[in-house]
Amino acid sequence: MNTLSLNNFSPLDPESFLEESKLIVDFIPDYYRNVEKYPVQSQVCSGYLVHHCPDSAPYSPEPLESILKEVSDSIIPGLTHWQSPNFFGYFQANASTAGFLGEMLCTGLNVVGFNWIASPAATELESIVMDWVGKMLMLPTSFLLSGSGGGVLHGSSCEAILCSLAAARDKVLKKIGHHKITKLVVYGSDQTHSTLQKASKLVGIPTSNFRSLPTSFSNDFALCPDDVRTAMEEDIGAGLVPLFLCATVGTTSSGAVDPLEALGHNVTWLHIDAAYAGSACICPEFRHHLNGVELADSISMNPHKWLLTNMDYCCLWIKEPKLFVDSLSTTPEYLRNNASESKKVIDYKDWQIALSRRFRAIKVWVVIRRHGLDNLMFHIRSDVNLAKRFEAYVAKDPRFEVVVPRRFALVCFRLRPKEEGEGIELNSRLLMVVNGSGRSFITHAVVGGIYIIRCAIGSTLTETRHVDGLWKLIQDNAQLVLQELGFALEEA
Amino acid sequence: MNTLSLNNFSPLDPESFLEESKLIVDFIPDYYRNVEKYPVQSQVCSGYLVHHCPDSAPYSPEPLESILKEVSDSIIPGLTHWQSPNFFGYFQANASTAGFLGEMLCTGLNVVGFNWIASPAATELESIVMDWVGKMLMLPTSFLLSGSGGGVLHGSSCEAILCSLAAARDKVLKKIGHHKITKLVVYGSDQTHSTLQKASKLVGIPTSNFRSLPTSFSNDFALCPDDVRTAMEEDIGAGLVPLFLCATVGTTSSGAVDPLEALGHNVTWLHIDAAYAGSACICPEFRHHLNGVELADSISMNPHKWLLTNMDYCCLWIKEPKLFVDSLSTTPEYLRNNASESKKVIDYKDWQIALSRRFRAIKVWVVIRRHGLDNLMFHIRSDVNLAKRFEAYVAKDPRFEVVVPRRFALVCFRLRPKEEGEGIELNSRLLMVVNGSGRSFITHAVVGGIYIIRCAIGSTLTETRHVDGLWKLIQDNAQLVLQELGFALEEA
Repeated sequence: MNTLSLNNFSPLDPESFLEESKLIVDFIPDYYRNVEKYPVQSQVCSGYLVHHCPDSAPYSPEPLESILKEVSDSIIPGLTHWQSPNFFGYFQANASTAGFLGEMLCTGLNVVGFNWIASPAATELESIVMDWVGKMLMLPTSFLLSGSGGGVLHGSSCEAILCSLAAARDKVLKKIGHHKITKLVVYGSDQTHSTLQKASKLVGIPTSNFRSLPTSFSNDFALCPDDVRTAMEEDIGAGLVPLFLCATVGTTSSGAVDPLEALGHNVTWLHIDAAYAGSACICPEFRHHLNGVELADSISMNPHKWLLTNMDYCCLWIKEPKLFVDSLSTTPEYLRNNASESKKVIDYKDWQIALSRRFRAIKVWVVIRRHGLDNLMFHIRSDVNLAKRFEAYVAKDPRFEVVVPRRFALVCFRLRPKEEGEGIELNSRLLMVVNGSGRSFITHAVVGGIYIIRCAIGSTLTETRHVDGLWKLIQDNAQLVLQELGFALEEA
Repeated sequence: MNTLSLNNFSPLDPESFLEESKLIVDFIPDYYRNVEKYPVQSQVCSGYLVHHCPDSAPYSPEPLESILKEVSDSIIPGLTHWQSPNFFGYFQANASTAGFLGEMLCTGLNVVGFNWIASPAATELESIVMDWVGKMLMLPTSFLLSGSGGGVLHGSSCEAILCSLAAARDKVLKKIGHHKITKLVVYGSDQTHSTLQKASKLVGIPTSNFRSLPTSFSNDFALCPDDVRTAMEEDIGAGLVPLFLCATVGTTSSGAVDPLEALGHNVTWLHIDAAYAGSACICPEFRHHLNGVELADSISMNPHKWLLTNMDYCCLWIKEPKLFVDSLSTTPEYLRNNASESKKVIDYKDWQIALSRRFRAIKVWVVIRRHGLDNLMFHIRSDVNLAKRFEAYVAKDPRFEVVVPRRFALVCFRLRPKEEGEGIELNSRLLMVVNGSGRSFITHAVVGGIYIIRCAIGSTLTETRHVDGLWKLIQDNAQLVLQELGFALEEA
């Protein structure tokens, strides 16, 4: 029976809700069961989908069954399967049943907690779980709401960095005048995520005032504190105003860690981008990578990468939440209320870009409770162990080399070229052949002029056999590529 | 059996996925069945939740049943129930089963389509549904991807306006030099959503260069084209550079519509914020409110408000997508790929703030197909008819007045004060008593110095009896408030 016929249109009918939802919660685990059968990287050609879709919206309702059939027939072939156990590209988007359940609660309750009064539980649960995660990372109390700071949930690192940058900018411009916005300078390394450059441009800092300081093999691609100091001194000498330094814990290209303790002094605003490796720091053996965090002004990390939380989810802590409010608050009459005016509650709309906000806190709350800190640490360690296993394979095969020491669950390696100039051709060809097989998916980066292949381990469904399978696939294809390109290296 | 014990940790196990998800898809319709029983506005005190939660994350996993029990016992009492049929505050957040199903698919597939190659279907479906929605609104082909423009999905109007502003800013600064950023001026009315002011500040425009032009009862709180022209001329005379005008179709306070046709000439960048009333414009009888849209450079609307799409979902169209790419593109080496370099595909990361992005397109695709345009129009018209019904009640009771003519499904009214100065006390008291009863939830605004009560109809579960109940509740409490405050008005 189609409950969406016009005579009795009931688009949120509790009875059909259950029935229709069951079709989906059958469909999704089926997808997971079958995901290994699909090519990991989609093999469609650009423009493929337009041939499967009408060019305007249907006038009449369609049954869910035919919509799901089209997901199977038309959408799934066009996906690159981030949930495949053979997905080793970029950084993984780490899903879990608990993350899915949390998202269902968020979407089903569908409250909009822009200020406290609009759903007190949404605000208060967010404050509580942000303190939980902060304590899992052993952040100093100066970042916790139960201390003198506070945390907020954003959707992405870029949003977190954008808001931190805006707060830093406005704090400084308040003293020196808004006309000096063109004098402000932002610093990162050539390994810092491109999001810093984007955020910097978005908040109105001239692109010529963005410093991407070079890193090198000599210190594993970490920012060099002396270089930062020199760059800032030169800028001051030129009449510019150093504003913001972004240090990274776990860079995208190679998992590098900037030396926080050495960087955190004499900086107007230090932000720590721990988007990827922040999750690992819940394990005591990785926590030292955050040493020096007490010197920072703000720090962000993304549980949607490596903490079993489905997209999207970025944690941001700041020492002086007031600075967010100064930069981001607007209070139109229609949002005024006694609770906000009492100043006893948080209105998270003033800690983020948008007014509207989803009840994301319930998602990470379910993820943490359903797994417990114990299992979350186990999960990180399992991935790191798989990465060690892969690293050992690479190290044992003389045709290959690990290019950058592994710190977390990312292994950066390559086929050794005979001549340095041949490295790109050799390894990009290997990457293309591996991905073209559809059996695994890996991506690349360039560090210190070297083209590397990245094996990022962390898809939830990845097991030992998948890592072993990836290595076998790489070995087999390496031989083919070496032969094809006429490189006469000995076999392992 | 707890599948999350350490010996066999399997956080995305397809078998337990089904079992656990069933608990949630039972829980949520139960919530909808019971939502009328809860006070619509939460009646908890600030800080209530901290007494229900441990102050740090649990070490061991907990069964889903106890997590759901805590949702019932601790979270639900702290919610203001946006899905209650008695929710008439702000603008509704319009949920539907189809929206929920679409979100489940998005979350379950959990792909991250920042560029085409990372999941071609995510990009291509987004282009297709954005053209669908664009055609539903009868946007000119200059906004469609099948024409010369294009659409993109953001999470919020603020993000849409921020990106449009940044594109406008960079287009102009490229010609006149970045140092002139402090000369740029942004225009809206005193009815424009506060998000414009926030976005303007975020992109580095001095707050002194933000013009909030006054509106009045005389033209139903619409922007006056002459005032815009005068303000721009004055600014030019003062050496400033008019940059961006935001016109609104359906303001938050009163549903006002700015005259697009008269505003769109001689403006560097016209953005149309149709966040709320854009949805209504899928009905031919409301489409005239978008007349003049062809003069705009960008337009945004939020299906998560009134088009049966669960949070979050903002559609943004732009005539020159290249300007987004100019402002927002970064291409680090690790994201380079042949498809992007062919320039034959869209990389939506360059049309938004963040790099990461969820597969939101599948949500609106399910919503549109499951309902069909026919039912979506029916849904809008039903809400408008309920608003007409409420408006007629107000008009019939001499103690009350409709303060601003109703255009969509928002009725702005008040208890008539004997003396104008008493209006705020009388109506804020009435609002407090109604909301304090827990039986309905309404919010307020101030337009033209008049404190008004807003009745925004559009929660999916709202039926005639709820609107009648709200009116009865208001009438009963009006009598009490009038007596309590000693106003001797006659009863209706």
